[in-house]
Amino acid sequence: MFESAELGHRLSKADYDEIEPQLRTDLLNAQFELLENKGFATVILINGIDGAGRGETVNLLNEWMDPRHIEVHAFDKPTDEERERPFLWRFWRALPAKGKIGILFGNWYSDPIGDRAFGRIKKAHLDQRLSDLNRFEAMLAAEGVLLIKFWFHLSRQGQKKRLKALEANPDTRWRVREADWLFYEEYDRYRAVAEHVLRRTSTGIAPWVIVDGTDPQYRAAQVGNTLLEGLRRKIEQVNKGYRARLTAAPLARAVDERNLLNALVLNQPMEKKDYESQLEKLQGRLAMAMRSEAFAKRSLVLVFEGMDAAGKGGAIRRVTQALDTRQYQVSPIAAPSDEERAQPYLWRFWRRLPRRGKVTIFDRSWYGRVLVERVEGFCSEADWMRAYTEINDFEDQLVSAGAIVLKFWLSVSDEEQLRRFKAREEAAFKRYKITPDDWRNREKWPLYEPAVCDMIDRTSTENAVWTLVEADNKYYARVKILRVLVDKLELALNK
Amino acid sequence: MFESAELGHRLSKADYDEIEPQLRTDLLNAQFELLENKGFATVILINGIDGAGRGETVNLLNEWMDPRHIEVHAFDKPTDEERERPFLWRFWRALPAKGKIGILFGNWYSDPIGDRAFGRIKKAHLDQRLSDLNRFEAMLAAEGVLLIKFWFHLSRQGQKKRLKALEANPDTRWRVREADWLFYEEYDRYRAVAEHVLRRTSTGIAPWVIVDGTDPQYRAAQVGNTLLEGLRRKIEQVNKGYRARLTAAPLARAVDERNLLNALVLNQPMEKKDYESQLEKLQGRLAMAMRSEAFAKRSLVLVFEGMDAAGKGGAIRRVTQALDTRQYQVSPIAAPSDEERAQPYLWRFWRRLPRRGKVTIFDRSWYGRVLVERVEGFCSEADWMRAYTEINDFEDQLVSAGAIVLKFWLSVSDEEQLRRFKAREEAAFKRYKITPDDWRNREKWPLYEPAVCDMIDRTSTENAVWTLVEADNKYYARVKILRVLVDKLELALNK
Repeated sequence: MFESAELGHRLSKADYDEIEPQLRTDLLNAQFELLENKGFATVILINGIDGAGRGETVNLLNEWMDPRHIEVHAFDKPTDEERERPFLWRFWRALPAKGKIGILFGNWYSDPIGDRAFGRIKKAHLDQRLSDLNRFEAMLAAEGVLLIKFWFHLSRQGQKKRLKALEANPDTRWRVREADWLFYEEYDRYRAVAEHVLRRTSTGIAPWVIVDGTDPQYRAAQVGNTLLEGLRRKIEQVNKGYRARLTAAPLARAVDERNLLNALVLNQPMEKKDYESQLEKLQGRLAMAMRSEAFAKRSLVLVFEGMDAAGKGGAIRRVTQALDTRQYQVSPIAAPSDEERAQPYLWRFWRRLPRRGKVTIFDRSWYGRVLVERVEGFCSEADWMRAYTEINDFEDQLVSAGAIVLKFWLSVSDEEQLRRFKAREEAAFKRYKITPDDWRNREKWPLYEPAVCDMIDRTSTENAVWTLVEADNKYYARVKILRVLVDKLELALNK
Repeated sequence: MFESAELGHRLSKADYDEIEPQLRTDLLNAQFELLENKGFATVILINGIDGAGRGETVNLLNEWMDPRHIEVHAFDKPTDEERERPFLWRFWRALPAKGKIGILFGNWYSDPIGDRAFGRIKKAHLDQRLSDLNRFEAMLAAEGVLLIKFWFHLSRQGQKKRLKALEANPDTRWRVREADWLFYEEYDRYRAVAEHVLRRTSTGIAPWVIVDGTDPQYRAAQVGNTLLEGLRRKIEQVNKGYRARLTAAPLARAVDERNLLNALVLNQPMEKKDYESQLEKLQGRLAMAMRSEAFAKRSLVLVFEGMDAAGKGGAIRRVTQALDTRQYQVSPIAAPSDEERAQPYLWRFWRRLPRRGKVTIFDRSWYGRVLVERVEGFCSEADWMRAYTEINDFEDQLVSAGAIVLKFWLSVSDEEQLRRFKAREEAAFKRYKITPDDWRNREKWPLYEPAVCDMIDRTSTENAVWTLVEADNKYYARVKILRVLVDKLELALNK
């Protein structure tokens, strides 16, 4: 969930000053339109890591918009009035009326995350509470509430730096309490629990928006943009007379140019000689692991996704070279068959799942739903929005049943892709590998890029992590894939 | 959940023979229309109590319709193929394609119910699994599947009778295994777990349909009608070009004339002298309970619903006579205020919840959503269908926070209501109690009756049970209410 937010996004003062006046005006206009048509209430949840700028952002929203129609509620320890009623009572009391905006700072997520991070409740109990919260939020959405959930994030380093900076400045020193440092010690636990909670509660109707909290300008612009988009979409729907129901809040949009894909250095060095010796060693380890007794009780699901000509096929062959033919199946996924089209979209993947001791390698996969189907409009926004949760559920079930699930995204640069396309056209025996569709998809890359970033942010989980592979150099890419595969496999089998 | 199904519904052979030919023809036509337009797949879940006629019903459906397009899957112990994959794999394999009907006999509910009833898993674990199943079914519905979930029910007596009857007949003796009798011993535990599971998984998009399994004719007609209605509604939607999404399957309809309300004997005897002495005793016990130390840690929520002039006000006064004025609040619920209308519909009730040691008495309540709002069309079908779950969640939260929740439905007969209306019009000091609306509602009673029955079936839970009160005799009604209240209160406080 936190991949994009840990990239180190920035927005220069100059860039910020350029966009800020328009953003403020637009937000204020949206707020007044909302006030006038009173079509829905807006609830903004503010959660995240200490020091990631939650308070500053709330102040900023009040500055930007008309604060008379924004209700800010900060929840700390419950009062005795609150303790004597159900957990959600204090939040019901704070719900904004239609036309208003409510900002809930410290809300129904604070206790579950804290209780689990500090070991006060078990995993099953946490999941029970999260499922209660999902039902609660589904009800709010069905009642027409626009729910926008912000998570302000900092990496471990980022939080340390931020706390030190606050301490170093005499004007802000007071803001760092001893508790903040104690909390910092628990960063990793807290981050892991938060990731689980965010994933479980990031639904099609109310997805989490993760905000990189490092840079104040970036943070402010991202929150402002997201809120504006959410308000505008919902206002438009209400004005059009659609019943204002089940509107997905928008996903986070990066404000700067930086994203998970362009942050990669695609051309990584590796010589052929090096490649050959490493390949041999890694394939040897892979073969050993696959023949181990431990693997007889597990199964392996590999997913390869990537740009056209990024080298998926070549990488898959380097994996299968180490396997017994009876042990694996490669499933190339193209357009669904008639039979598959007559079923829910995950059906075609369920039918290909491996038994114990076996491997299925998916050359493209269920991620088509949030990539090609999203980009080409083969399914509605509501469909691909709900798919993130459905895919996470699917992979959770695989992992619970003993499967090891590894996912690789292969990226090549624009120039390298062009070079490979041309080479394919020239070599007669490779010509079948290049079609007009490939050229068309190449044109559409600007649409695929955000879809890929959303996919990684929303489906890279503790159970099934994405590995991004820099693939301009095929040798490097294949070795990286095999190394990650072998390392993770050995780790899983030795558990 | 099982209230209506334990009433002892019957359909005579003659009545059955009269409706059966038409039902068969209609079902067959619906099946062929489905086959032709291939708009959706139909999944029928068959669950319930042993001996309640599940197998016979499946056979009947195959007889009625074209069995070439019905796939019946019975799931027993998983095969080794199945054991080596995620739990849901075997069910994914069995999903019917669009245009087809799949009957799943023993399905994803069998294990969770059995595992919990026989103590193999804890409550939190059960709830985790149920929330997984809810997400799975939501996905199926979003993918356009029509999901109809039948629970075939027998009361404890009913099951015993049925097993004995099968044993007594030499032709059917073989059908009763020893396991069936062992199972019967566990009836109460099993029923309690089933009730919890059905309630948790009875959603607006896929509600359970509870079938009284006692009488073969009744059972067959009810299943046939429900299936027909479900198919027709969905076919109509698909033909109209609506995206075939999120259609609620129909609720169960009684096939005979018998229902929870008309099964009551409304005119129960009670003399004034008796009433006065019992009232005094019960009010004394109530006052004691309310002043106890145990109650200082709890709260009490009373809900009174009922027909106009059924005597809610009078009954409430007999309760409050025993209470300290500082301890209780009576909340009469009429049309919502502007402020309330600007909020989710449960908001107005949340704001009235009592603290510890206090009582709130709701004279009408949140059940308006599934009564007047449903009948008058103030909300959409989707809204009142989801309300059952939302209300159950709400009451669960109350109970988890220490509240004792008791709900009373007061029924008067048609003649008695008329008599009381007229008496109100005649007595000057009571004239404010009768309005044209009351007369209008009286006309609409045939629409209210099924709404009340659905409400009781779907919201009478282990945490917050409905008490039906025969109210033609006010003395009897008041004493019954006080007795139930005092008994349940003392029980809860002594726990």
